Amino acid sequence: MIGARGRDSAHDAVLNYTESTRTDERLALYDIWGSQAHVLMLTRQGILSDRHARDILAALEQARRDAQTGRLTLEPRLEDVHMNVERYVVESAGKEAGGRLHTARSRNDQVITDARLYVREELLNLGERLVALCRAFLDLADAHRETVLPGYTHTQHAQPITLGFWATAHASLLLDDARRLSAAYETANRSPLGACALAGTDFPTDRHLTARLLGFASVEEHALAVVSGRDFIAEALFALAMLMTNLSRVAAELIYWTTFEFGLMTLHDDYALGSSIMPQKKNPDIAELARGRAGKVHARLLEVLTLLKGLPLGYHRDLQEDKAPLWEALDITAGSLNVLTGVLRTVRVHPDRMLDLAWSNFCTATELANYLVVERHLSFREAHGLVGGLVAWLAERGLTFRATDACADFLATRECPIPVEVLKDILDPVAAIGRNRSLGGTSPREVERMAAALRRALDDFAATLRERKQAIEAARVQTSALVAKVLEGASVAALI
Amino acid sequence: MIGARGRDSAHDAVLNYTESTRTDERLALYDIWGSQAHVLMLTRQGILSDRHARDILAALEQARRDAQTGRLTLEPRLEDVHMNVERYVVESAGKEAGGRLHTARSRNDQVITDARLYVREELLNLGERLVALCRAFLDLADAHRETVLPGYTHTQHAQPITLGFWATAHASLLLDDARRLSAAYETANRSPLGACALAGTDFPTDRHLTARLLGFASVEEHALAVVSGRDFIAEALFALAMLMTNLSRVAAELIYWTTFEFGLMTLHDDYALGSSIMPQKKNPDIAELARGRAGKVHARLLEVLTLLKGLPLGYHRDLQEDKAPLWEALDITAGSLNVLTGVLRTVRVHPDRMLDLAWSNFCTATELANYLVVERHLSFREAHGLVGGLVAWLAERGLTFRATDACADFLATRECPIPVEVLKDILDPVAAIGRNRSLGGTSPREVERMAAALRRALDDFAATLRERKQAIEAARVQTSALVAKVLEGASVAALI
Amino acid sequence: MIGARGRDSAHDAVLNYTESTRTDERLALYDIWGSQAHVLMLTRQGILSDRHARDILAALEQARRDAQTGRLTLEPRLEDVHMNVERYVVESAGKEAGGRLHTARSRNDQVITDARLYVREELLNLGERLVALCRAFLDLADAHRETVLPGYTHTQHAQPITLGFWATAHASLLLDDARRLSAAYETANRSPLGACALAGTDFPTDRHLTARLLGFASVEEHALAVVSGRDFIAEALFALAMLMTNLSRVAAELIYWTTFEFGLMTLHDDYALGSSIMPQKKNPDIAELARGRAGKVHARLLEVLTLLKGLPLGYHRDLQEDKAPLWEALDITAGSLNVLTGVLRTVRVHPDRMLDLAWSNFCTATELANYLVVERHLSFREAHGLVGGLVAWLAERGLTFRATDACADFLATRECPIPVEVLKDILDPVAAIGRNRSLGGTSPREVERMAAALRRALDDFAATLRERKQAIEAARVQTSALVAKVLEGASVAALI
Amino acid sequence: MIGARGRDSAHDAVLNYTESTRTDERLALYDIWGSQAHVLMLTRQGILSDRHARDILAALEQARRDAQTGRLTLEPRLEDVHMNVERYVVESAGKEAGGRLHTARSRNDQVITDARLYVREELLNLGERLVALCRAFLDLADAHRETVLPGYTHTQHAQPITLGFWATAHASLLLDDARRLSAAYETANRSPLGACALAGTDFPTDRHLTARLLGFASVEEHALAVVSGRDFIAEALFALAMLMTNLSRVAAELIYWTTFEFGLMTLHDDYALGSSIMPQKKNPDIAELARGRAGKVHARLLEVLTLLKGLPLGYHRDLQEDKAPLWEALDITAGSLNVLTGVLRTVRVHPDRMLDLAWSNFCTATELANYLVVERHLSFREAHGLVGGLVAWLAERGLTFRATDACADFLATRECPIPVEVLKDILDPVAAIGRNRSLGGTSPREVERMAAALRRALDDFAATLRERKQAIEAARVQTSALVAKVLEGASVAALI
Repeated sequence: MIGARGRDSAHDAVLNYTESTRTDERLALYDIWGSQAHVLMLTRQGILSDRHARDILAALEQARRDAQTGRLTLEPRLEDVHMNVERYVVESAGKEAGGRLHTARSRNDQVITDARLYVREELLNLGERLVALCRAFLDLADAHRETVLPGYTHTQHAQPITLGFWATAHASLLLDDARRLSAAYETANRSPLGACALAGTDFPTDRHLTARLLGFASVEEHALAVVSGRDFIAEALFALAMLMTNLSRVAAELIYWTTFEFGLMTLHDDYALGSSIMPQKKNPDIAELARGRAGKVHARLLEVLTLLKGLPLGYHRDLQEDKAPLWEALDITAGSLNVLTGVLRTVRVHPDRMLDLAWSNFCTATELANYLVVERHLSFREAHGLVGGLVAWLAERGLTFRATDACADFLATRECPIPVEVLKDILDPVAAIGRNRSLGGTSPREVERMAAALRRALDDFAATLRERKQAIEAARVQTSALVAKVLEGASVAALI
Repeated sequence: MIGARGRDSAHDAVLNYTESTRTDERLALYDIWGSQAHVLMLTRQGILSDRHARDILAALEQARRDAQTGRLTLEPRLEDVHMNVERYVVESAGKEAGGRLHTARSRNDQVITDARLYVREELLNLGERLVALCRAFLDLADAHRETVLPGYTHTQHAQPITLGFWATAHASLLLDDARRLSAAYETANRSPLGACALAGTDFPTDRHLTARLLGFASVEEHALAVVSGRDFIAEALFALAMLMTNLSRVAAELIYWTTFEFGLMTLHDDYALGSSIMPQKKNPDIAELARGRAGKVHARLLEVLTLLKGLPLGYHRDLQEDKAPLWEALDITAGSLNVLTGVLRTVRVHPDRMLDLAWSNFCTATELANYLVVERHLSFREAHGLVGGLVAWLAERGLTFRATDACADFLATRECPIPVEVLKDILDPVAAIGRNRSLGGTSPREVERMAAALRRALDDFAATLRERKQAIEAARVQTSALVAKVLEGASVAALI
Repeated sequence: MIGARGRDSAHDAVLNYTESTRTDERLALYDIWGSQAHVLMLTRQGILSDRHARDILAALEQARRDAQTGRLTLEPRLEDVHMNVERYVVESAGKEAGGRLHTARSRNDQVITDARLYVREELLNLGERLVALCRAFLDLADAHRETVLPGYTHTQHAQPITLGFWATAHASLLLDDARRLSAAYETANRSPLGACALAGTDFPTDRHLTARLLGFASVEEHALAVVSGRDFIAEALFALAMLMTNLSRVAAELIYWTTFEFGLMTLHDDYALGSSIMPQKKNPDIAELARGRAGKVHARLLEVLTLLKGLPLGYHRDLQEDKAPLWEALDITAGSLNVLTGVLRTVRVHPDRMLDLAWSNFCTATELANYLVVERHLSFREAHGLVGGLVAWLAERGLTFRATDACADFLATRECPIPVEVLKDILDPVAAIGRNRSLGGTSPREVERMAAALRRALDDFAATLRERKQAIEAARVQTSALVAKVLEGASVAALI
Repeated sequence: MIGARGRDSAHDAVLNYTESTRTDERLALYDIWGSQAHVLMLTRQGILSDRHARDILAALEQARRDAQTGRLTLEPRLEDVHMNVERYVVESAGKEAGGRLHTARSRNDQVITDARLYVREELLNLGERLVALCRAFLDLADAHRETVLPGYTHTQHAQPITLGFWATAHASLLLDDARRLSAAYETANRSPLGACALAGTDFPTDRHLTARLLGFASVEEHALAVVSGRDFIAEALFALAMLMTNLSRVAAELIYWTTFEFGLMTLHDDYALGSSIMPQKKNPDIAELARGRAGKVHARLLEVLTLLKGLPLGYHRDLQEDKAPLWEALDITAGSLNVLTGVLRTVRVHPDRMLDLAWSNFCTATELANYLVVERHLSFREAHGLVGGLVAWLAERGLTFRATDACADFLATRECPIPVEVLKDILDPVAAIGRNRSLGGTSPREVERMAAALRRALDDFAATLRERKQAIEAARVQTSALVAKVLEGASVAALI
């Protein structure tokens, strides 16, 4: 820990309050990679000698191996991951060489370099999980293109839809989340390294080189803006908050659709939990947690916005609190995507119950109104009024649209005779969904078309994820190869 | 108001609680435009006769003129803008024609059509105000490329920077806001019209046609996803929340930099307020309100996320509450951009005070440490230790780096003699900023380069805004021209 | 508007951005009352002459009458309610007298005086609405003490309860809201008047006298704390946020319980809305809005906390933004209490459906397990295992606990024979709820006892509300009477 | 883990997503205490035999000792603390006895019993830390009753105050936090045990007895309300959110007051941190973290409100997420109180700088205006105008109120001659604060009076904390003593 005016220590309670090693654990390997790239660049620019570079890089390699095997524990008394790695290097490579590692950088640019490297990969991993969930929805859509159920508005039966239509709706909404994750990736994938404390440096650094070695797509140039800004964190959190919001909506439907009362679906026993006191229970705990945890991610986004509000430019210790919320949001979202994919892949659908409900509560009323408009030239409002009257009349008598004869009679007495056979076809939910062929509508043909289009979009997104992962991996391999050659005795200038 | 099962009325208290006419006021002209496009499409598709279309369009034109002249007041008892406009049409064109306006649409797709049309334009207007603010920053940067002041971290002097560097940092951060506004525009600029209640329709509608007449870039296809999703609102709100967060940071700096203690700047009297009791006061009320209102916009974003959490697909009345928060956030952000531009264009800068501060508190200490690393081959950590000692020694004696001789003596006794003339150059903040030439650093040359690049990016953004506004205007004009021709007696089929 | 260093004006855009007259409208009468009390005190203390006092009080009386009849419109160019009222007084009473009104006070203490006076009364009004809602619940409880339905956990049937039990649960939770409203009232009901700008004054004021004339219970002493603190607003907002949270839970149950699938209740047509396109719909819009608006109130609370975070002591213009969120939250909560009371007073309950559900999904399984523990001395975990097996066995066969014979057979083969008649009684939900007589349990006897206790607590709360209203009214009458006597020519010193 | 319908297992990914052992760790000892009380009650009521009770209590005692020595590790595969403790008991006491522990309770009432027991104590601990911080402020107040500095509004100099006045302002605001912590304690300190799953039980339990053994002040009766409500968590979080908000204001002042520019205070080196790159830095990291973390606590409050919104009554797994936010908020607040107390106890105050500032920027202008009102009978608004003119005139000439002669000249030419000696006294900040003797004002006499009153209030609060801790300890001792006697062979019926 660096005390005031460079002193070695501060009060213990102060250390406990300020150290961040637990949050920083995830950054150790990224801190090392960033340091390797920094050393290679310093040496290539003549700021560091080959000899010093070799000593430092040897120590960093050792730190990397320790980190990979879990033997690099971050000491709280060293405050953060950066001081831990640097101390490791100094102890291993000696003060003379190790003390040069921190030349032409600052913890201010270092911490966001690490964070961006980590977040970037996590967003790609999350993207893959999102693809898996969307595919589960699309498989469900393919299997249930013609499974009819009531579409709900206000949680009341509105018009018949198919389960495939419902499943493609979720896939469609989630593809917008894929877009947001992708944009957040691009915002994160810019190199801050070399901004130093806030003003750049008088060392002749090459920020493009470190960016390349770290696989960043570009350099985020303005040193003060780089050190002050946290929009890569806020954007990622917003992408996660919207995604979790969408998942919470899936969750809410699963919770209600698997009730005894709705009975549209049954959870697989592997994805339901029981009660410590009520032996008959089969509870949708997963969906409940996904619903509840959406709010946690909202709060994390808000936390970061609040953190930034009213903060002057430059680094402030407040900014240390930017990482934990993002880490938590990433974990929650990854876990939620994972278990919900399992839930959807195993849930049992009850088509009979769905169809029965679609017949039971007048959800083809709009079809009849539309028929009256088109074929009987009533204005929409007149048609609406007439059908409303019919529904009220049937409901009072405990009847549904299954009572086609009664419906025909009612209409006939209102000077709107419709042949029973025609009426049957109008009021049949299955026939109705077949007719709803407008662009984006619920007809099986449209659902099939949309499912195919969504699958293509999903494949494109998955391909992008793969390419991005490969680009990162290539940069990592390149850095490692250069480090290996330097350790074997090559001169950096000859390599880069 | 549409009561249960189509009844004409509900309880008065219910109406008061549920009506939304005050929020809807801004949507009237958009509701009319959307209705015009809808009628043209219905007629072109043979769903409406030319005669009915003419009657409806005439009524809509009249409504449009009334709305433009402030004579279309929305009646709360008609619940919302849609019912108000429809009632206007029915009264003006008669039940026979007017009752057909609502064919093949629903308030569910209508309300988000209106909202998207409105938000889209507001985001462009906001973009223009953002350009103006950025230009104020860049003009300040050009004027103060060499004005030296202390750069702050932890609100303490860190290293010297220039005011131009500071101003370009804000412009750089705000350009990311421009990108987010632009992305939010694209999300909003997709047509939901034709999704109907949630399932599409069996009328042979042409959603691409209405999209074109309304100037939308594309059709948002999936009917259920369209009706359920509100990410165009959440994305816009996030873009505004981040922008206001960035403005709150500008505001915080203005508040502190114009204190008696800092004295770096003085507000123009036009942009400062006084006290009802203390005659000497000159208060930064504007900056304080901008800072405070950032939190309002955060809360609006959160409000919408909370609204959506756990909501099943389909329309729910909860969703009515999606608009007011966005309206408020748009107003707050527009106002804040506006007044802050004025503040920055009129603020008086005090370069002498800035330079004096840059000399007074050791902010070139890093320069000296770097010199020791490069020229004396100390490791960074050793150099850091030595300079820290010097600073402590000077501070105890009430001296600053202006006391170059004393500094030279101190260093000489620590076996690090540096000629006084060399030392003077190292410790001079003006010389220091000239040396910080790393990419993105504070040197006047870099600031000039970055300012130019930012100006180009800003011009590109402004050009995009103009193009988008022109595209919208072109669609509006096209719709109007078609309407005019129909009113003159042309057949829709012959026109489109 | 007071410009910098006392200038008369500032820029127009600045005025638009900073003026608060729309929010302040509700405060006009309170600002006048506060001014009356202030003038009486100043005069009693000899700071103001009787003659000046008379002129000012006459003007204030006139302002009060204008405000009551809607003729006092607040001019935005005068910035806020305080400047409007003062200008009114100066114009009416002349500069010589009117210019003395603002002696020994500041807008800093004035604005929170007004706000506290207003909020205090609104909290009492809200309390009365809360009482009305609780009474609706308790009346429902009395009517349905023996109406059996499934109690839900995880939205799955858990154990049988009565509707009366459910209704008293809500009343019980809402009584905690009453307690919070009451505490928020006490926090608000302390006088800040006399704190002046931040430091008190050298005028010999009597803060206890103004507190008494305004009906405040005490003086909030510390001038700087008073001017800086806003906990009376945050506490009120938290009380409202929790209350709305509780209402959102009522709303969520109403939404699901009135679905076709649950069918436990039917909304009265007066308290349901319909669809513009689907004539059969009967939608729970009110409950949906109450649910959705809870999030608005959460956001308002957050908004105020964010506002205060990191603000130094003293008045800052940020604090102007403390009122609108509270006003909105008060309106939302008042409206929600109002309509939900209507909903509950008119909702139709379906006891047959409730009982049928209570029989259909094993919700007396715990009763059977408990019986096995008590009478057969199984450990709870053994009993739990055995009953779980029975439930699974029945479910596979499509049976329920109505199949008592089958249940008896199953248990007999597991070495746990229970006579069919005994088993019937155990498994009968009606019998079960009769047995759940533990303190706070669902038995009709307990529900009756709790309902009576809740009613008593409610009466106490209502009585407290009445007393507090009377105390406020008494202070208002006293102030008016004193003003009247002064206007008739009495000397203040002789009166107080 | 309890699978669906009582199965032993669920999917691994499900377990990872749902288990809560890390959050539950803090509850182990409370879960054991709750279980001891429950067993004693069951036995006293004849529901459990003495023999079974003895076996269970022996196992619980062993678990308690293991927990105290860190040997009770919670297994994630057992899902939560309750299942871990129960499994421990079953393994230690055997199935026959251990299986009876869970009789007449549910995890639904158990988890809130544990949480209330834990939170209750933490609120008391926090109260003690708050007392320590307030005492630090009051000691500062006593030492600086006459240390004059400018009071700030809008971060601009307003009127002179004393540092003691400032310190007592914070103490005064924090005492309101003490009140809120106390109220939150009372809400938490009610026993939910015996509510069971949601409906009570048919076992003849005695909830008052368990409440007494656990030191709860009363029983929270309604079983369904108890299991559904989380206001004890929300209230505690609100109390912490307000407290952290108040601390963030202290922090913000420390950050700015210790800048080079303000220079009002200097942090002790033990409570400041340095920079890895800038050797001269002395940073207020602690205050920055306290400021930043206030937002974390706001977010935690919001998280819980969001969690509860729209949740039907009964237990839902969403509610599992109620604890982590409160734990984090408690940790953050405890840490912040702790380090800020240290900061305040060690901070160095610079009275000379303070006084110098008080003279430099017209902060006695109000004094002069008041003098003109009282002695020269100007109206306040006239006086305000005249003094404003004087200030502008002096500022233009670079003068301050120290230039008494110039001031006197200016006033004389405006027909308001004031003798220089009189004017000196009016304009002297030290004299001014001595005159501000209104109730709650900044005069040393008032500060002394308020400090003494605050100290008394603090002592009362500290005494209440002690009494509450003793009451809890007494209940813990009583339970232990009873357990010990049972283990020695006594019959429960003979003991209680």
